[in-house]
Amino acid sequence: MKRTDTAPPAQERFSLQDSLFMRRAISLARRGEGKTSPNPLVGALLVKGGVILGEGWHRRFGALHAEAEAVRAALSKGHSLTGASLYCTLEPCCFTSPEKHQPPCTDLIVQSGIRRVIIANTDPHRRVNGRGIRLLEGAGLVVETGLLAQEAEELNPGFFTFHRRGRPYVHLKIAQSLDGGIAAGGGDARWITGESCRKIVHRLRASLDAVLVGRGTAQADDPELTVRLVRGRNPLRVVLDSRLLLSPAARLFQLPDRGKTLIVHSRAAPVGRAKKIQKSGAALVSIETSPEEKRCGLPLCKVLAALGERGVRSVLVEGGAEVFGSFLREGLWDKISVFIAPILLGKGRKCVEAPGAASVAGALHLKNVVIKKIGNYILMEGHNVYGNN
Amino acid sequence: MKRTDTAPPAQERFSLQDSLFMRRAISLARRGEGKTSPNPLVGALLVKGGVILGEGWHRRFGALHAEAEAVRAALSKGHSLTGASLYCTLEPCCFTSPEKHQPPCTDLIVQSGIRRVIIANTDPHRRVNGRGIRLLEGAGLVVETGLLAQEAEELNPGFFTFHRRGRPYVHLKIAQSLDGGIAAGGGDARWITGESCRKIVHRLRASLDAVLVGRGTAQADDPELTVRLVRGRNPLRVVLDSRLLLSPAARLFQLPDRGKTLIVHSRAAPVGRAKKIQKSGAALVSIETSPEEKRCGLPLCKVLAALGERGVRSVLVEGGAEVFGSFLREGLWDKISVFIAPILLGKGRKCVEAPGAASVAGALHLKNVVIKKIGNYILMEGHNVYGNN
Repeated sequence: MKRTDTAPPAQERFSLQDSLFMRRAISLARRGEGKTSPNPLVGALLVKGGVILGEGWHRRFGALHAEAEAVRAALSKGHSLTGASLYCTLEPCCFTSPEKHQPPCTDLIVQSGIRRVIIANTDPHRRVNGRGIRLLEGAGLVVETGLLAQEAEELNPGFFTFHRRGRPYVHLKIAQSLDGGIAAGGGDARWITGESCRKIVHRLRASLDAVLVGRGTAQADDPELTVRLVRGRNPLRVVLDSRLLLSPAARLFQLPDRGKTLIVHSRAAPVGRAKKIQKSGAALVSIETSPEEKRCGLPLCKVLAALGERGVRSVLVEGGAEVFGSFLREGLWDKISVFIAPILLGKGRKCVEAPGAASVAGALHLKNVVIKKIGNYILMEGHNVYGNN
Repeated sequence: MKRTDTAPPAQERFSLQDSLFMRRAISLARRGEGKTSPNPLVGALLVKGGVILGEGWHRRFGALHAEAEAVRAALSKGHSLTGASLYCTLEPCCFTSPEKHQPPCTDLIVQSGIRRVIIANTDPHRRVNGRGIRLLEGAGLVVETGLLAQEAEELNPGFFTFHRRGRPYVHLKIAQSLDGGIAAGGGDARWITGESCRKIVHRLRASLDAVLVGRGTAQADDPELTVRLVRGRNPLRVVLDSRLLLSPAARLFQLPDRGKTLIVHSRAAPVGRAKKIQKSGAALVSIETSPEEKRCGLPLCKVLAALGERGVRSVLVEGGAEVFGSFLREGLWDKISVFIAPILLGKGRKCVEAPGAASVAGALHLKNVVIKKIGNYILMEGHNVYGNN
């Protein structure tokens, strides 16, 4: 984003029409939701004389990039692209590699005769990161960046977090009673919130790469962690189960797509149990744990790194209290969504098990708080103030 | 309210003009807020030919009743009341007693030549309770009831609760973190919410007869429990301090109006401590406690009865967790207001200490839930489903 630092603010450099076209590109990008990871969602639009010549979006991992889709769409309608403007939500790629399925978009753009390229965000991928822009400028194109950068970035929290912080985006989701309980005394947690809230959760699951729960929650709630109340693909289901204690009878091992159930365990877990799980069809990830780490459960840094290696760019953490506490304590989180029901559970299980702040000032303060009413429920969301943990 | 059961619904019996006049009477009633208890807030309006002849409200305990105020206002302007309509938010009183400062309003109404009386609520006081209406009808007046009954009842939650349930109205107010903590690990609770929320609390204090806290909260927070952020009179300040352990250095004993500090204690508390408190100028209420009650703190039924005897019709309970838990457990509450801040306290003090529900279905479900956003804070309010505790 260095390039825009010295430029005048976006609202002075871009016309209202520019914004409208970029907004369209952003909404095109969303059509690939749940299908492109670890690639980002990208949308692109070709315009000449105020007329849209072609539109494109990255449809799924491995498929054509958004820019190439837009070019193909325009050419298939017989348009000439000479002098056209290209709006794209992300800086066009400029490299080839064995793991990359598509050729560099910069070549295609230059060859097609496009004159102006308007970009929302530079690509944080270490092999792009401004190089795409410089390449286009070197070829004589006019390149402008920063239009609706914030909105476009929200398309890809996982992608941006992964390339900036070297770990997947972590979204904590808690459903609790008004007095901060996530389960009744007996462990019962169904359902603290209503279907309207659970629909929002299922939409979240469909848009993120993985959901993650602790072994205790997997055992007590026996959840499916699938997408049922809305349309969308099931995310990877991750259970932190250091010693592989989750019963093979758990619903997560019975699902038709049980290959998408991933059990993360300590390397020290009994081999016999690991074999049983493999037989069920679920996948296993073994983590090296030091004796001290073993005492505190699985080291989350290593867990996130292992998920990242498997292409996971975003994780929805769904409990329980100890898992929430660990992510919060280690500062390994980006967003938190808390659904609050108008009920009082009394001495049930507290939502977060973490060492307490010594003072109110020392509490974890959320940033960019958003409050939504969902019928009789509240959804409070906030973001991490990195470095304050 | 029996009288209206067989009558057609209010919206058919009353004109739009009737509603407008009653709404005006309700807003007049509010002018007495904080000054009339144990009497209710009452407003009244005299109308003839669509013109308001006089308005009145009960200004303070012991002063003229609203109806008499309205009659006086109309007569002082030289109006004749013959054939006029009287709108009043509460059934006019119809009895005299040594503790009652004013003569029966029914006599005045009949004598003044008023022809029609429109009433929002019947008076639940056992010596009125429909007798006022029958008296007026017996004298040949037209009486209609039930207009804006709900709105008018909200003027006087304490008065109605006291006469229906035989105890003051109990409003629980909790300020907590998102994870249900009311204090940090070290006991620090200042300030979990911002000034905008505290202003709402001060407005509540000004409108209710008493605020109540446990000894632990009085000690840890050393609060004033006064009205400072808005205009209004200070309520009675009640501390539950079974064994009289609160330090005489507490701020509650230093306030200029410390006569409004009331310490409720067990009869078994040491006499020496009681004498010290009396010297400070604060008041004492001693409660007989059985050995078993002593173990669980002060019996709240008896505490509320004692407050009721002292004219308290409404109490704002401000903590701490054990006190909230006791009121909730015993079902001795009417409304709960929970302010939620966008912070996480971790293992701080939980907001409610009460035995937990065994299941989510068995949790305490709030009725008539209202959710308000106050900047970055949430206010969730709900009411008791009586009998479900």
